[in-house]
Amino acid sequence: MSDYVRNLWYMAAWDHEVPDGGMLSRTLLDGKWLIARLPDGDYAMLADRCPHRFVPLSKGRLDGDVIHCPYHGLGFDRSGACVHNPFPAPPPTHVRVATMPIVHRHRGLWFWPGDPDKADPALIPDFAFVDREGMSRSRMTIHGHYELLTDNLMDLTHAEFLHVTSFGVNGSIFSGTQSVTKDGSGAIWNNWDMEAVTPPDWALPLLGDSAPIDQWLHMRWHAPACMALTVGLARTGTDRRAMVVPQMVNPHIITPETPGSSHYFYDHEATEEAAALARQVFVEEDEPMIEAAQDALAGQDFWDARPAILETDAGAIRARRRLMQLRRAEAA
Amino acid sequence: MSDYVRNLWYMAAWDHEVPDGGMLSRTLLDGKWLIARLPDGDYAMLADRCPHRFVPLSKGRLDGDVIHCPYHGLGFDRSGACVHNPFPAPPPTHVRVATMPIVHRHRGLWFWPGDPDKADPALIPDFAFVDREGMSRSRMTIHGHYELLTDNLMDLTHAEFLHVTSFGVNGSIFSGTQSVTKDGSGAIWNNWDMEAVTPPDWALPLLGDSAPIDQWLHMRWHAPACMALTVGLARTGTDRRAMVVPQMVNPHIITPETPGSSHYFYDHEATEEAAALARQVFVEEDEPMIEAAQDALAGQDFWDARPAILETDAGAIRARRRLMQLRRAEAA
Amino acid sequence: MSDYVRNLWYMAAWDHEVPDGGMLSRTLLDGKWLIARLPDGDYAMLADRCPHRFVPLSKGRLDGDVIHCPYHGLGFDRSGACVHNPFPAPPPTHVRVATMPIVHRHRGLWFWPGDPDKADPALIPDFAFVDREGMSRSRMTIHGHYELLTDNLMDLTHAEFLHVTSFGVNGSIFSGTQSVTKDGSGAIWNNWDMEAVTPPDWALPLLGDSAPIDQWLHMRWHAPACMALTVGLARTGTDRRAMVVPQMVNPHIITPETPGSSHYFYDHEATEEAAALARQVFVEEDEPMIEAAQDALAGQDFWDARPAILETDAGAIRARRRLMQLRRAEAA
Repeated sequence: MSDYVRNLWYMAAWDHEVPDGGMLSRTLLDGKWLIARLPDGDYAMLADRCPHRFVPLSKGRLDGDVIHCPYHGLGFDRSGACVHNPFPAPPPTHVRVATMPIVHRHRGLWFWPGDPDKADPALIPDFAFVDREGMSRSRMTIHGHYELLTDNLMDLTHAEFLHVTSFGVNGSIFSGTQSVTKDGSGAIWNNWDMEAVTPPDWALPLLGDSAPIDQWLHMRWHAPACMALTVGLARTGTDRRAMVVPQMVNPHIITPETPGSSHYFYDHEATEEAAALARQVFVEEDEPMIEAAQDALAGQDFWDARPAILETDAGAIRARRRLMQLRRAEAA
Repeated sequence: MSDYVRNLWYMAAWDHEVPDGGMLSRTLLDGKWLIARLPDGDYAMLADRCPHRFVPLSKGRLDGDVIHCPYHGLGFDRSGACVHNPFPAPPPTHVRVATMPIVHRHRGLWFWPGDPDKADPALIPDFAFVDREGMSRSRMTIHGHYELLTDNLMDLTHAEFLHVTSFGVNGSIFSGTQSVTKDGSGAIWNNWDMEAVTPPDWALPLLGDSAPIDQWLHMRWHAPACMALTVGLARTGTDRRAMVVPQMVNPHIITPETPGSSHYFYDHEATEEAAALARQVFVEEDEPMIEAAQDALAGQDFWDARPAILETDAGAIRARRRLMQLRRAEAA
Repeated sequence: MSDYVRNLWYMAAWDHEVPDGGMLSRTLLDGKWLIARLPDGDYAMLADRCPHRFVPLSKGRLDGDVIHCPYHGLGFDRSGACVHNPFPAPPPTHVRVATMPIVHRHRGLWFWPGDPDKADPALIPDFAFVDREGMSRSRMTIHGHYELLTDNLMDLTHAEFLHVTSFGVNGSIFSGTQSVTKDGSGAIWNNWDMEAVTPPDWALPLLGDSAPIDQWLHMRWHAPACMALTVGLARTGTDRRAMVVPQMVNPHIITPETPGSSHYFYDHEATEEAAALARQVFVEEDEPMIEAAQDALAGQDFWDARPAILETDAGAIRARRRLMQLRRAEAA
């Protein structure tokens, strides 16, 4: 049974990662792919391997909407058909490069590795909130299976340990109430709601005082591992919609690179300070922990390793079960 | 059949390697373990992997005699039981981390990977001589199977070639007499005795002249690979107990790290000069040779590679046979 | 079926790579070998692994025509027999190191990994032209299967893409005529002949003007991957033997190092400029492309990857088929 559910939308890149009239090469679901930005503004996604001598087409040249191999000059169009042979013989039209449906939405480029006839863009999870000013959209590689990243994000209690310094949290998560729900879009929500707690350090300048607040951390998950975190803060006793600190929503979108590594797409405010905090939290704190878990499993299946299940795992486990159902359905 | 005999004491570390109130992480017999120094002075040895999300407990915090996971804060006591859950739910007491018996003896920490009921500390080989002043106890990693290191140490004739410059040996080993014996402790001894030979360069300042001497190199081996080398020197014609240069005994204790690498525990006088000589001999001379042999075998079993057997191999081969018997007995 | 045809001559090294009275260690056909230059000027080729403890004999010492192991001093002669034991016991004469026939010819050292009785030096391909003044003979490692290098060299159309800048080619290969032939020596020739084309940039200083020329690129291939390239240039309308620019012949000899890497033996004029051009073409341009193809195959057999076949592949494919026939014949 494949580790990857195929009939799903995955995010390949932020749109700014593909230069105008250029190509991006990226390993996705254990295969090498290129994404080309064509003159008409459309994107094309082709296997990054020439069918003649197997070299990366992305090292070649995009001329109009034809991708030319860097080795012997064969040219391929957006459909993957060989349309150009620089030598007198005609192009070998029976030769095709694999392609995948690709859609530009919410500042990301989304691909569908399954049956193209089922690739309905309406199934892309709603990340419309991503398209706002003043934000930097970034990507990093995490050396861990994508479901270990889901575990990380669907159980934010780890902030009280792994990120206790960087986030200036103060134990308020311990007193929160967890609820796991699902909604009509197929999302699973893992929600923490904290009432009448001391504000976290980072919010003090925004609040002006340390009077008790209500805080909520709501993580929304769509298969395979596309998450959105809503953080809210209101003075205790007021309506939650009357927030002193405006509610924030951030993307945490994970795409498998290989069985042991993942692309992590996130954003942060476009300031040096926010970039440094993201590096601290993701690169210095989360990455080594997830990589250590990946190494410890040493290729063993997560369930075969018989993990202890805690009540706080409820959301993460629900997401793992949903994926398992989807895998089984595709294998059947 | 496992490469490792399990019902034996192995050395995990020198005692100074584990900080007071702290933890040491080490790969031993292909598994990751932590050794904790508890407030009461005892040591605990636990698998270095949280049963919840598989991260290294050694990156966490030792609080009293409870080890707290760095990721989600579960706490484990010296018996491996989960005794603390920072969240409202009770600790998952059915969850246990594996442990091994560990004993502090002869400045080393010894563990027993087999049946705990058989872990009799009286079976630890006698290295009482290690506990003396003026010595530095060290450890290095050798990239070779532990039996290749045993071969190296149980056949010191290689000093005439590999260490000829660093030790200033002069061919006296060629004229020695080898004897292989065993004693009541289960040890195998590989003894070289040289009579009326020219003193080695290193002994000249101690002797004052180059009159003929008797010299002996006696290597004692206990399974799996715990060795002690006695070096003695007396003027020829005198009683061997009347030594001008005092007899020296040094530990050469090997513990498998992985199938292809070993921990090498040794000591030397606590001087810069002695440290430099140890580095020269072990790091510059022995290590590359053993690593080359390991690479040449490329995973093949030593006996399947049909090694030539020399008379000088008698001690090394005897140790290999003993281990093979122990492996077979455990497999049966 | 082995990837390597055994009853063939392969090139191990240029002669200058083995120092007088010294040894060279090299991985060839996935095995480690040493080549020794003996006092009588002959060369010996032995497995670079002592049969006692498997360390590299090449790290030892060549004393007369005896190779002494660096670890315990066993000595081996050119026939691979153990002829010296430094300890009182006699040398273990039943112990032998594997050898291979080796012949010094055309400034190279050629070995025969198959049946020694069939090792007829007359079968070494003719590279007599290599022995000329003013040339530097070099070697580099290419991280690709040796047949991917054959593909590269037997299809020079790639110069119009990969080397278009470094060679200053100008599309003349597109208008050439390809012919694939074989000759009485068993060679396969892949010939490109271009008539009345604009001279390439590099030839302009030699020609004095840019009047049309005839140019030819003739690549001769002998199994396994020993190639020679003839480059010729004559003014159009004149006899091809009346060349303004003298015809050049260069060796392109490939020997497998491992299944995924190859030794590439070549030469160039002994100038800094020619060395820089060779580095540019082989290291900067060819190497990454071939390594990418090797990585893309990821251990898959070339034919199982179902490569597209172009007309310009005719010579390369003919060489691949010849090798396949030789492999099958040896496997039978």
